[in-house]
Amino acid sequence: MEERQVYISGKMVPESQARISIFDSAVMLGDTVTESTRTFGHVPFKLEEHIERLYKSFKVTRIDPQCTADTMLKITQDVLAANLGLMGPGDDCWIVHNVSRGLAIAGADPTVQLGSATVMIFTQAMNLLPWADYYTGGCHAVTPMSRAVPSQSLDARIKNRSRMAYTLAEMEAKLVDPLAQSVILDVHGNVAENKGGNIFLVSDGVLKTPTTANCLAGLSRQVALDLARDLGIPAVETILQPYDLATADEVFFTSTPYCIMPATRFNGMLVGDGTVGPITKRLLQAWSELVGLDIAGQAQAQRAAS
Amino acid sequence: MEERQVYISGKMVPESQARISIFDSAVMLGDTVTESTRTFGHVPFKLEEHIERLYKSFKVTRIDPQCTADTMLKITQDVLAANLGLMGPGDDCWIVHNVSRGLAIAGADPTVQLGSATVMIFTQAMNLLPWADYYTGGCHAVTPMSRAVPSQSLDARIKNRSRMAYTLAEMEAKLVDPLAQSVILDVHGNVAENKGGNIFLVSDGVLKTPTTANCLAGLSRQVALDLARDLGIPAVETILQPYDLATADEVFFTSTPYCIMPATRFNGMLVGDGTVGPITKRLLQAWSELVGLDIAGQAQAQRAAS
Amino acid sequence: MEERQVYISGKMVPESQARISIFDSAVMLGDTVTESTRTFGHVPFKLEEHIERLYKSFKVTRIDPQCTADTMLKITQDVLAANLGLMGPGDDCWIVHNVSRGLAIAGADPTVQLGSATVMIFTQAMNLLPWADYYTGGCHAVTPMSRAVPSQSLDARIKNRSRMAYTLAEMEAKLVDPLAQSVILDVHGNVAENKGGNIFLVSDGVLKTPTTANCLAGLSRQVALDLARDLGIPAVETILQPYDLATADEVFFTSTPYCIMPATRFNGMLVGDGTVGPITKRLLQAWSELVGLDIAGQAQAQRAAS
Amino acid sequence: MEERQVYISGKMVPESQARISIFDSAVMLGDTVTESTRTFGHVPFKLEEHIERLYKSFKVTRIDPQCTADTMLKITQDVLAANLGLMGPGDDCWIVHNVSRGLAIAGADPTVQLGSATVMIFTQAMNLLPWADYYTGGCHAVTPMSRAVPSQSLDARIKNRSRMAYTLAEMEAKLVDPLAQSVILDVHGNVAENKGGNIFLVSDGVLKTPTTANCLAGLSRQVALDLARDLGIPAVETILQPYDLATADEVFFTSTPYCIMPATRFNGMLVGDGTVGPITKRLLQAWSELVGLDIAGQAQAQRAAS
Amino acid sequence: MEERQVYISGKMVPESQARISIFDSAVMLGDTVTESTRTFGHVPFKLEEHIERLYKSFKVTRIDPQCTADTMLKITQDVLAANLGLMGPGDDCWIVHNVSRGLAIAGADPTVQLGSATVMIFTQAMNLLPWADYYTGGCHAVTPMSRAVPSQSLDARIKNRSRMAYTLAEMEAKLVDPLAQSVILDVHGNVAENKGGNIFLVSDGVLKTPTTANCLAGLSRQVALDLARDLGIPAVETILQPYDLATADEVFFTSTPYCIMPATRFNGMLVGDGTVGPITKRLLQAWSELVGLDIAGQAQAQRAAS
Amino acid sequence: MEERQVYISGKMVPESQARISIFDSAVMLGDTVTESTRTFGHVPFKLEEHIERLYKSFKVTRIDPQCTADTMLKITQDVLAANLGLMGPGDDCWIVHNVSRGLAIAGADPTVQLGSATVMIFTQAMNLLPWADYYTGGCHAVTPMSRAVPSQSLDARIKNRSRMAYTLAEMEAKLVDPLAQSVILDVHGNVAENKGGNIFLVSDGVLKTPTTANCLAGLSRQVALDLARDLGIPAVETILQPYDLATADEVFFTSTPYCIMPATRFNGMLVGDGTVGPITKRLLQAWSELVGLDIAGQAQAQRAAS
Repeated sequence: MEERQVYISGKMVPESQARISIFDSAVMLGDTVTESTRTFGHVPFKLEEHIERLYKSFKVTRIDPQCTADTMLKITQDVLAANLGLMGPGDDCWIVHNVSRGLAIAGADPTVQLGSATVMIFTQAMNLLPWADYYTGGCHAVTPMSRAVPSQSLDARIKNRSRMAYTLAEMEAKLVDPLAQSVILDVHGNVAENKGGNIFLVSDGVLKTPTTANCLAGLSRQVALDLARDLGIPAVETILQPYDLATADEVFFTSTPYCIMPATRFNGMLVGDGTVGPITKRLLQAWSELVGLDIAGQAQAQRAAS
Repeated sequence: MEERQVYISGKMVPESQARISIFDSAVMLGDTVTESTRTFGHVPFKLEEHIERLYKSFKVTRIDPQCTADTMLKITQDVLAANLGLMGPGDDCWIVHNVSRGLAIAGADPTVQLGSATVMIFTQAMNLLPWADYYTGGCHAVTPMSRAVPSQSLDARIKNRSRMAYTLAEMEAKLVDPLAQSVILDVHGNVAENKGGNIFLVSDGVLKTPTTANCLAGLSRQVALDLARDLGIPAVETILQPYDLATADEVFFTSTPYCIMPATRFNGMLVGDGTVGPITKRLLQAWSELVGLDIAGQAQAQRAAS
Repeated sequence: MEERQVYISGKMVPESQARISIFDSAVMLGDTVTESTRTFGHVPFKLEEHIERLYKSFKVTRIDPQCTADTMLKITQDVLAANLGLMGPGDDCWIVHNVSRGLAIAGADPTVQLGSATVMIFTQAMNLLPWADYYTGGCHAVTPMSRAVPSQSLDARIKNRSRMAYTLAEMEAKLVDPLAQSVILDVHGNVAENKGGNIFLVSDGVLKTPTTANCLAGLSRQVALDLARDLGIPAVETILQPYDLATADEVFFTSTPYCIMPATRFNGMLVGDGTVGPITKRLLQAWSELVGLDIAGQAQAQRAAS
Repeated sequence: MEERQVYISGKMVPESQARISIFDSAVMLGDTVTESTRTFGHVPFKLEEHIERLYKSFKVTRIDPQCTADTMLKITQDVLAANLGLMGPGDDCWIVHNVSRGLAIAGADPTVQLGSATVMIFTQAMNLLPWADYYTGGCHAVTPMSRAVPSQSLDARIKNRSRMAYTLAEMEAKLVDPLAQSVILDVHGNVAENKGGNIFLVSDGVLKTPTTANCLAGLSRQVALDLARDLGIPAVETILQPYDLATADEVFFTSTPYCIMPATRFNGMLVGDGTVGPITKRLLQAWSELVGLDIAGQAQAQRAAS
Repeated sequence: MEERQVYISGKMVPESQARISIFDSAVMLGDTVTESTRTFGHVPFKLEEHIERLYKSFKVTRIDPQCTADTMLKITQDVLAANLGLMGPGDDCWIVHNVSRGLAIAGADPTVQLGSATVMIFTQAMNLLPWADYYTGGCHAVTPMSRAVPSQSLDARIKNRSRMAYTLAEMEAKLVDPLAQSVILDVHGNVAENKGGNIFLVSDGVLKTPTTANCLAGLSRQVALDLARDLGIPAVETILQPYDLATADEVFFTSTPYCIMPATRFNGMLVGDGTVGPITKRLLQAWSELVGLDIAGQAQAQRAAS
Repeated sequence: MEERQVYISGKMVPESQARISIFDSAVMLGDTVTESTRTFGHVPFKLEEHIERLYKSFKVTRIDPQCTADTMLKITQDVLAANLGLMGPGDDCWIVHNVSRGLAIAGADPTVQLGSATVMIFTQAMNLLPWADYYTGGCHAVTPMSRAVPSQSLDARIKNRSRMAYTLAEMEAKLVDPLAQSVILDVHGNVAENKGGNIFLVSDGVLKTPTTANCLAGLSRQVALDLARDLGIPAVETILQPYDLATADEVFFTSTPYCIMPATRFNGMLVGDGTVGPITKRLLQAWSELVGLDIAGQAQAQRAAS
């Protein structure tokens, strides 16, 4: 079977040979910024915006990618083009950028970029199985005991690959339920974000989500806010606390792969009446229309075929 | 010229071919724990203790290395043996362990270790040039504006490779002086640690260093405390603040490669009279005796030869 | 069957008739301070110290008990005497004081004690079944996501009955394991206390427990520290964090009913090798000698008889 | 004289016999949630909303009331009906719900509801004397030194009876002035709430009150915001600090019994010119119209009759 | 050359003789509140508003100025009138109020105002040289490592002369660049204020500045917000963090002397493309129109003449 | 009557003419560091140590006094000598240093010392009346609602004259009692310091005082610790909270003028039995012996003569 092609610092290589030195700062220091988008019907979603945010991450981390955003876009489109033929007609794929500061020599100053950045761009098949059932049944949202890294330590808006804190927090949530999805709190106990997504609730018809003062400014998060505005659903960005989630009518997560993942339990309690709520459904429907593809249906088709 | 050999998950490979998949959790998530020790006169320093701490990191991060600490020690000794012949008689080397949770598949649950951990063990030539001059002239210690990641987000005692926060903090310190060494504060404004070392001061004859409530429990830190005890120098672990460093008689860092790095300036002010102080010198002398090697002399010899 | 006698504000009444007005500040405001001790072999343990601490709580909460500590002691002894005959020879009992500010009238100033305090003193059969198995198998210690009430809100050393925060935190721990025992963190993420006990760990032969800056100054906690001193076990009161528990050799709780409850799991990880450790055993043994009764044996006898 | 009837867990009893076991979790643990509303002209005010909020408290505290909200409403109406005849024509009454988790057995797991919840529903005569003078003269608002319990310890929106922290804070305020009304700050020093009410200020014509991130979402608070909207008074929910109160033109509290209590002094300083301000008066006037009763007049009539 | 006249507590004196006792609370305790405005074309700017804010500071600090705001205004106008003749036609001047609590006797209670406040009112020539180049080239904004004094310690809105914390923070910023302008963060790591001004950014066409919860409610800050409203530029007051400044399109400071000071670098990174941005220019242009004077031109004329 | 002589920047002037420019940074910015000692029997107490600490303040604030510590000592002795003749035989005096950064020009960079520091050295008659009664009756210690400035904003160990936060906190304490002495808490609610002194308590025979992590490292504080050591009284520096003071057996303040000021009430509650305790008396007695003067007697003699 033909392999996917991966771009690494100027070269296209088959996925199985996509390897980097163990002395790369990606491995040695987690010194990597990243973006992830996906295709809908084989068309990349908001790719320009993702690349624009990638360049914000470059700026703040002072990584020099040594190419312009336009070039980065062009390369990305080439990577996608090289792999489109490998996807089935109903399937879609991730498009991921990982860019590290390049080689890190032991004992050298890690803040100085010694040479070329390591640019990794790849696609991966969208495996939607983990979320397929959540569109109808909802998932279990759980707050871990650890707290999100505060902005004055590392701003969550720098989309990066130093993710150990998130992985450990997710593990804590999964102590409660192996299928739990984390709702990480910040050091003040306010709701921040999921390990890889943003969190919304609906209360008395109003859509609410934390401000970006303590979480990633997710592009999917912005889509949900934009769709709400278009649908006439009032939406606010504000401080939220576990009490808000526990007493909400609806709760859902947003992220690139699944768009919207409803949560019907929170820390063991039912959210609302324990079913996916009407505003969540309207937003998911509008999202499907926006991208021209039945989002839940695609995942459920994968489930059926698996 | 012959290459160093690196151990990666069961195989010895030449350094130039030491590569891992870009889909490894080391790259995708910074999900790697680590240890670094060095040789003194070609003999590894406190290797057992480093491996013991590595297994603490495994435990807390729930990474399964799939081998015992004894096996890990044996492999490490083999790696060192394979590379000893490549070192000059006056030179020494790093011994580094990086162990990730193994492959990370996009969209899969990152908290589940899907297969084998990726075990990377390598040596690297000790490049002591960055520190050679500091043994006599001292370095410039500078506090960055960002704060250390708090323990309730990710405990600093988990020696890990999700280091972006440290790299960015070090960059901030280097805005003040390109050769500055960071003194990172915690979220309360107390002194925590250097990006890769611990911090000590001497005030009125008493050696002081932060407790491990906000910093790595460095093995070199422990050596300094042990040597002080042996030399009859009173030593305390306590809360320290920038005021303490600004008014100290002596300041130094400890870390594996350089053992002790005196600081003679702090945020642009002289530390004491701006020279390396007597207690710092006594500790460095005792350390050299402990390891049977003139620590500063080795670095200065590298400098002379460079 | 004969009923236990309960003291309520000057009268002895049978337990089934021990009732207070729903307008009492105990019910209306949780405005109650409390002490709990137990008997060992029918002899009350440190009763004077408990009453002394009760009077500290009176002072800080400005509740006027309208009797001296000596009188309170005398009444307590009378309550015990009235109920001793109801205990089997191998059994023991709780001795509990609950004292509220008395009647609270809706709309009245709750800070003014309108009349007599409501003094409730009762014994209850020690049901040791919940802990019987933990002496040998250890319990599962789990950190909830909520944080202990900080001292600047309500000092944990005021032993009081406004305990909802503790109950909810315990519920969160039990989401992980229905038999979990909570390890509540403070707002800085440091280990504070269990919902009704203190926490200790052993690391490299040193016994450690948090200072009372964020937890109850438990009398059992003090017994453990005193026994350690007598046994020559080094003991320190210091900041502890989840990392310390996760990497400890031994962990246990202390509280009045069970004295010492070993924990052999922490957040799903084994503590040490997952068995009750030697220092825990020595302390429990010394405690049994101190009180002249096989503490674990008593619980296990209850278990056998149940 | 005929007594008021109280509902306790299925039975109507005369007030003087309204008693619960001292082993109830209400007494043993302050494990009680609550609501308080009042009548205006013998008609209950927003009773459905209060019961709705009570059920939110049940949910978050995982207390099972073992009856539906509709049944709870019906019972409450019955309690009111049973007591209406005892009120004078110009008088009104409190309607209070206190619901605990039921019996708490010493040593048993407090998180498990062992049997029936203890449901207490009662009315009490509205004693408006404490506030009668404040409608015209204003009260003295004072900030205590203790801080409100933070949301990550116990969310203020859970209306509960573990109120010791509030009682002690109120005592601190009364050290300054025996008639002081507390303005409790949160742990960041921002204005939170009164021991039993919410706080508003008027500055340059804008009505301001803290968001519910650090205080009870008072129903009276919502009435004030709704009336302001109806009257065209701009209103914002925002962070407030003591400086805002010290420099405000008007300050007032809201709560069920008094609706609006103007404050004309703050920490010993005059608020504005030291008289009750025009916006406060307009809101109180509108509130009186809303409920069809001269709110201040009713209190002043009580005063005159006393 | 004729000297400027200064007002000190009832007398006009030449500037060179404007002296106060070293026992004044201004010297002994920094117990001074202050205001600073300037003239534009010899006309004082928002003098009434400055005096109104001065009286807010009097109120909060309980300093009794012993004269009304109207009298203070009249005196200030007299001081200005006395000095107008000394200014060149193109020049302008500061108008500064410093009012201390008066004499402080060693050992006496500093909270009791012993006699007359010390009222100092003076003008000073506007030296615009420090800012002249920034209108076109922009300055370098740098975050110091120290944090702003929190509101619960001393509210930044009390415009006062206990400014050591600000001076030391400014020094830290100048370690990075001798011409740096400080961007002081609060204790949570959020952007607060400059040592003597407020901070704005422009992102995607929206003007943003911190709320006054952590900074001075600058009158120039309000001018900028008012001008934005008039120009149809959307503006929000919100939490800002260093990430926001690092990724902003434009950044500028506002303060009395310079009105708007563009920043084109932030912590060594370019702001936007490193030039003064279009919205900054529009606001400065509108400000010039508001005050009838080319603000940048005046500074540049000084530069040319110097 | 002859006047005291004051030293100002090189000149001795009579006290009534001791004045500085209103443009001095002392007035403009509170940019002054300070020391205060006193004489006992006309002999200065620990003058060298005070000057040593003054030079630490110079270092941290980067004020250049332009003379050595030896010269500063010599000048100080001259000032004292010039004024000794004006003291009665039983009287003593303050010796105060105030040193500012010198002239501050409006608009100029305040971090640059433009010229000479302004050195003010003066003596003042010790007015001991405020404390005379406290030696026998004790004072009333009260916690204000504001919090001490945290170290990351301005370290309390920099003895400085930007004291507005302290003055306002003292005012808050005096709302409770016009004679109250403040016990200022830090932002975590821990006991920090008095506006001009340190705080001690005695509990179960152990002397306790906060560490210097949140308060001035008072020289009188050190004397108390040294005397305790000499007297065999165990003493610890640790975190203290209001609960500790409320339940202490004894409480006292230390500061230069009064040495020890017992507190017999705390927030309206009696400390211990409300009398000055035995350890307080022993320490005061030892202090009197150390300085060769009956400290309380001197104050009481002043009282008798007044």
